[in-house]
Amino acid sequence: MEKNRLEAFSDGVLAIIITIMVLDLKVPHATELAVLKAVVPVFASYVLSFCYVGIYWNNHHHLLHSTRYVTGGILWANLHLLFWLSLFPFTTAWMGENHLAATPTAVYGLVLLMAAIAFYILQRAIIAQQGRDSLLASAVGKDWKGKISPVLYFAAIPLAYLSSWISNGLFVLVALIWLVPDRRIERALKKRDKE
Amino acid sequence: MEKNRLEAFSDGVLAIIITIMVLDLKVPHATELAVLKAVVPVFASYVLSFCYVGIYWNNHHHLLHSTRYVTGGILWANLHLLFWLSLFPFTTAWMGENHLAATPTAVYGLVLLMAAIAFYILQRAIIAQQGRDSLLASAVGKDWKGKISPVLYFAAIPLAYLSSWISNGLFVLVALIWLVPDRRIERALKKRDKE
Amino acid sequence: MEKNRLEAFSDGVLAIIITIMVLDLKVPHATELAVLKAVVPVFASYVLSFCYVGIYWNNHHHLLHSTRYVTGGILWANLHLLFWLSLFPFTTAWMGENHLAATPTAVYGLVLLMAAIAFYILQRAIIAQQGRDSLLASAVGKDWKGKISPVLYFAAIPLAYLSSWISNGLFVLVALIWLVPDRRIERALKKRDKE
Amino acid sequence: MEKNRLEAFSDGVLAIIITIMVLDLKVPHATELAVLKAVVPVFASYVLSFCYVGIYWNNHHHLLHSTRYVTGGILWANLHLLFWLSLFPFTTAWMGENHLAATPTAVYGLVLLMAAIAFYILQRAIIAQQGRDSLLASAVGKDWKGKISPVLYFAAIPLAYLSSWISNGLFVLVALIWLVPDRRIERALKKRDKE
Repeated sequence: MEKNRLEAFSDGVLAIIITIMVLDLKVPHATELAVLKAVVPVFASYVLSFCYVGIYWNNHHHLLHSTRYVTGGILWANLHLLFWLSLFPFTTAWMGENHLAATPTAVYGLVLLMAAIAFYILQRAIIAQQGRDSLLASAVGKDWKGKISPVLYFAAIPLAYLSSWISNGLFVLVALIWLVPDRRIERALKKRDKE
Repeated sequence: MEKNRLEAFSDGVLAIIITIMVLDLKVPHATELAVLKAVVPVFASYVLSFCYVGIYWNNHHHLLHSTRYVTGGILWANLHLLFWLSLFPFTTAWMGENHLAATPTAVYGLVLLMAAIAFYILQRAIIAQQGRDSLLASAVGKDWKGKISPVLYFAAIPLAYLSSWISNGLFVLVALIWLVPDRRIERALKKRDKE
Repeated sequence: MEKNRLEAFSDGVLAIIITIMVLDLKVPHATELAVLKAVVPVFASYVLSFCYVGIYWNNHHHLLHSTRYVTGGILWANLHLLFWLSLFPFTTAWMGENHLAATPTAVYGLVLLMAAIAFYILQRAIIAQQGRDSLLASAVGKDWKGKISPVLYFAAIPLAYLSSWISNGLFVLVALIWLVPDRRIERALKKRDKE
Repeated sequence: MEKNRLEAFSDGVLAIIITIMVLDLKVPHATELAVLKAVVPVFASYVLSFCYVGIYWNNHHHLLHSTRYVTGGILWANLHLLFWLSLFPFTTAWMGENHLAATPTAVYGLVLLMAAIAFYILQRAIIAQQGRDSLLASAVGKDWKGKISPVLYFAAIPLAYLSSWISNGLFVLVALIWLVPDRRIERALKKRDKE
């Protein structure tokens, strides 16, 4: 039950983050179709961040699925993750409104990097509680997605000053890598059920 | 349990969407009753969108009621639906603040159309998991509401340039069609319980 | 389970309404204590509306506690109630920012009245499903609070043009009447458990 | 079940409070890294308030964990706590935007003090229902954290006029005291399970 409330709170925060971002799609005063052109970069960064929050919700879901009890450490690691995710509306709007300018793009990448690190810490906290032989530990054993993502975010930060298109290309690439849902844990769960 | 969390997250997002729209009812500075006249079109489009989100919540409810497990495909089809619904506050405000001008009305219709398509994809994803002989598949078999709605939305888009009143009439018509709750699935469920 | 989701959705909407109202407490630019004086009427109307949403949540809680199944009629009666409650942030801000001017106060009373009527309709819809001999029907039998509240709201609307202090006095009075939690249903439930 | 809905509603309100505060991180119009310097005080007060809401959620969690039934008194004590917490976004933004000026800092401390008192009242209401020999009563018996926090908040209010840095230092100190999760109740629960 303790776990349920952690999930419910996290779901609430993620639901608000994903919906609040749309408030930065400022309603234009004119009514011609052309004014929507000005909204395009804000819209594009909204789509990107929507996917990212969706990915985090999905992975968070899988991560906690294998958990039974929630310790104080897990609770704070979870809040730490939510903190970085809560900055998405700010960085998304800043990058979108400035048509993917260098510094906002770099800061967008930095927040993505911090969220990835926070997710890693949460994963460690859960494995620490379950033991190194746990289901989760084996499932994330060869976690190439979790390993390559922060590397690409990290690379995207300085590259934003070369061309913010490269950085945003990397952000889209990482999103695509993750959009394929993480079947590792599902598979490991199925395996256990069979045994 | 996995399904519960999908429902909880969707409920959270829908609850926020339905409530956030009210923020576009800008508080007037004057205090005469006459200033409320300026709010009327924004208010009318708020009522319309409130009904639509209510309808989607209701149908979403029925759709997932017949589901037991949630696959990765269902999860992303659901997020895809939530994405289009999350644009309702934007299109509602744009149409309302511009007194039902042609382009905002057409864009409003386009987002309705995309949401209807997303709902259809979610329905397909759930049926795909349950098998073509499933309860849901038979329940939506003669889904005339689901078939006529996108046609009417699609028609409303160009008609907005003729008269946005026609388009909005169609939006109201579709809403009225759906406001009668979808008893098909309820009936099919009852049938099964009796057998 | 169907009922659970109705409760969860309503809780979500009520939680957002109660929290979104605080956004109308505009952050002052100056830092002297005196600037808070300008915030006082907005703050006072926030406190009043916070109490009202709390009362509605509490009563909604009791109302649904006695329900088992949710019909389409109950579902829409519930959305109808949420609609009127969703207008609270608008009327609260309009009344507060205009220092309890006559028309905003009258409109505030009107929305309270509509919410009270919507609550009554929801009550009827639930009793209709449970039968006239149901627990809820007997519990609300001598519902003097439910009967006197709309009368007072109704009186407050024209009285606002005489003095908005009288109207607001009535709003506070009704809130105080309700702040004593509704023990009728609790008592009826206990009685049943004993028998 | 009654308790579950109280938790769900509180989680919803806390999730919205913690996320809504980020809306006061106004998106800068310029794109140089230097503009972020102006955001630093707002960001710092956001981090502080995020920690506080996290601490309240955590402690609220522990508090209700030991409860089974929710009385009207507990329900209103809980809403009273949520009321003071709902003012966090306002005081956080006011303090942050004015670079920790004296009066906003004092008001920030006042709201923290009122929330601490509200939490204490809620604790008393729960103990009153459970009896003085209850698990919770013994767990909070030597509640030095709960006793020292309001004293420090109280001291921080006048000290803000001497130096708002001292006050904010006290706020950080109290946050650090609480960030160590409250293991008292966990321990008492474990003890009971063993017996």
